[in-house]
Amino acid sequence: MYLKNLGENAVKAKYEVALLDSETKNKVLKTVAEYIVNEASYIISENQKDIDEGIKNNMNKGLIDRLTLNESRIKAMSEGVLEVIDLEDPVNRVLDTFERPNGMKLTKVSVPMGVIGIIYESRPNVTLDAFALTFKAGNAVILKGGSDAINSNIAITNTIKKALKACNINENIIQLIEKTDRETTSEFMKMNEYVDVLIPRGGAGLIKAVVNNSTIPVIETGTGNCHVYVDKEADLNMAVEIIYNAKTQRISVCNACESIVVHEDVRKELLPMLAKRLSEKNVELRGDSKTKEVIDCIDATEEDFGKEYLDYILSIKTVNSVEEAVAHINKYNTGHSDCIVTANEETAKYFLKGVDSACVYWNVSTRFTDGFEFGFGAEIGISTQKLHARGPMGLKELNSYKYIIVGNGQVRG
Amino acid sequence: MYLKNLGENAVKAKYEVALLDSETKNKVLKTVAEYIVNEASYIISENQKDIDEGIKNNMNKGLIDRLTLNESRIKAMSEGVLEVIDLEDPVNRVLDTFERPNGMKLTKVSVPMGVIGIIYESRPNVTLDAFALTFKAGNAVILKGGSDAINSNIAITNTIKKALKACNINENIIQLIEKTDRETTSEFMKMNEYVDVLIPRGGAGLIKAVVNNSTIPVIETGTGNCHVYVDKEADLNMAVEIIYNAKTQRISVCNACESIVVHEDVRKELLPMLAKRLSEKNVELRGDSKTKEVIDCIDATEEDFGKEYLDYILSIKTVNSVEEAVAHINKYNTGHSDCIVTANEETAKYFLKGVDSACVYWNVSTRFTDGFEFGFGAEIGISTQKLHARGPMGLKELNSYKYIIVGNGQVRG
Repeated sequence: MYLKNLGENAVKAKYEVALLDSETKNKVLKTVAEYIVNEASYIISENQKDIDEGIKNNMNKGLIDRLTLNESRIKAMSEGVLEVIDLEDPVNRVLDTFERPNGMKLTKVSVPMGVIGIIYESRPNVTLDAFALTFKAGNAVILKGGSDAINSNIAITNTIKKALKACNINENIIQLIEKTDRETTSEFMKMNEYVDVLIPRGGAGLIKAVVNNSTIPVIETGTGNCHVYVDKEADLNMAVEIIYNAKTQRISVCNACESIVVHEDVRKELLPMLAKRLSEKNVELRGDSKTKEVIDCIDATEEDFGKEYLDYILSIKTVNSVEEAVAHINKYNTGHSDCIVTANEETAKYFLKGVDSACVYWNVSTRFTDGFEFGFGAEIGISTQKLHARGPMGLKELNSYKYIIVGNGQVRG
Repeated sequence: MYLKNLGENAVKAKYEVALLDSETKNKVLKTVAEYIVNEASYIISENQKDIDEGIKNNMNKGLIDRLTLNESRIKAMSEGVLEVIDLEDPVNRVLDTFERPNGMKLTKVSVPMGVIGIIYESRPNVTLDAFALTFKAGNAVILKGGSDAINSNIAITNTIKKALKACNINENIIQLIEKTDRETTSEFMKMNEYVDVLIPRGGAGLIKAVVNNSTIPVIETGTGNCHVYVDKEADLNMAVEIIYNAKTQRISVCNACESIVVHEDVRKELLPMLAKRLSEKNVELRGDSKTKEVIDCIDATEEDFGKEYLDYILSIKTVNSVEEAVAHINKYNTGHSDCIVTANEETAKYFLKGVDSACVYWNVSTRFTDGFEFGFGAEIGISTQKLHARGPMGLKELNSYKYIIVGNGQVRG
């Protein structure tokens, strides 16, 4: 009954938000950004309850830090909302027009998804961020955050609702599921009647649970076992710098490099250079037998090649050809981001076509797979599936489309 | 083990088919079309086994007819394959290009989905049709047909495989699941490791079962509770002809009209004209109280408004405004196709924007929601969900995309 009520509210709200023009939506976003700053002390005091609970439950320091809101973080969150104002409204783009021999005219036009469900983990800033993006794209949203951040999420949602009310906008455009038990979450994932698409944001476990249990269409995001392949015709200095960047610039993210593939012809020159550079960050190397002939490192197991370490660890595989490299990468990657370093265009083209990933790079670090780095101005997640959106998803990816057909009485013969 | 083997075969095959150029694919399609005709007597004799089994099991005449293959139907199936040759190859279209301030160049390009699973019911021609379309779009396919048509499906699949072998192409580009028990089907729907997308083709029961049980991304197709709204400013003769066409031209299809919505201002003039015209086909009318004030008909219940009759039955709802019409349609439709008949552009625009369906029509029969009528030259189904594709799906909708990023050593700061 609780969820059914939320679902019905969301469906009513989706028709209203879909009809709002860009100016109105931007005014609302500005008001929300102001309210978030004005209500900072309320949000911080509610957030403190979550932190106290976390400390009581021996939550680790990193997680406590991710959970914590303070004046400057709230300011940054509010500025994030203001940035969404400047993004182009994705609704109502004409994607195609054509006319048929019977005279009927067809227009394919972008429309909001409708009701978007988002299931996420402990970072409470996602509450505001997800609202701003789904709203600008013309959708109603139902949020299900983690129990760790429940008080913070309620406070942020209440603040957004206050701002909506001040703008005379249906407050149910955003709804938070306040029950954090498993049964409620499980039931939420089967609300096909009310929710058009479900986006999980979080670790591999959360995403897998949503994919396995949801009957609502899901956009799978996240896990990245990204590779850099160093070809026999690579600029080795460039290869070292790309690997160093992709591995160490930020280890905890999905577009970080976890494994490299090295052509045997360059292993003797490349691997010592690379080992030296990566030792600056104490990266642990795990290599196959031909790697170990050149540098000192731990044995790489089958399991290593399939692993997203999210740590200062790198696995190394040697190959005889670009074909072998592509086959290895397609076997172990997660369809996220993979790179070739080479000076040979033909080799690069083979790799870019053959590797089955959302983003394939030639002489560029995999760390650029990101909505902001791609220039989308926003990112709701990085899709690793092939249905609907692939790679970084911005506002456009939070839209569907419809066909509008105009005629003068055409009937089918 | 059986399915795992099929999955592994399909994954190997998908990399091969993805790399085939248009010329090669078209040559293969031509060969397949020839083999199908050449092997007609084999296919017909295997089909006879299914028919005999159907008769033994008291299958109804309509279903026996849908199951039956003969020389002329096989010829038509073969010609269907030849038509796919003329369609534009959807793979490798450049969808977008852009450059970032750091100099990296991005290209968004269409690529095959990979492995497509199709679960369908008793019409064996789907086996050939689904192969031709998924193959032209660069995919490997795993088919799961109904047990009623298993011998026919095996014969058609064997014939396609023979043609593939003659062309020196991996035969596992098409695989049929020959086990027709529920457990196998259920297991198939959870093969996320091997299958990129699942498309059910068949009745509402089949589609619901796939949506509820699959963990693989599904494209929901099919059910259509389509409406025609007759506005107060409608050309009533046009309205009558559109409704007559949408209701009676073919009653068993998803784009047939099941319910009409009538503005009260025109009910007294429209309804008698309409009743007369529809009586030519003995259409049973079920109306609300204000309809019954004007014409003789059965009481429409709440259930009627939500029903896809697929029969010579039409429900009638009266309203006071276009707003009420849109709200009624959004409450009861299935997001397929809905039409407004009006001479007023403002009213039409409100309707076209407000109704949440794949296809919204102004003064045109809903019967045109179809891949061929839209000019796509093919149709794998009509999507009623919002993720990925909406409305008729042709070859382009059997593709995903990837981003290709080219640079000269860019790393992230």
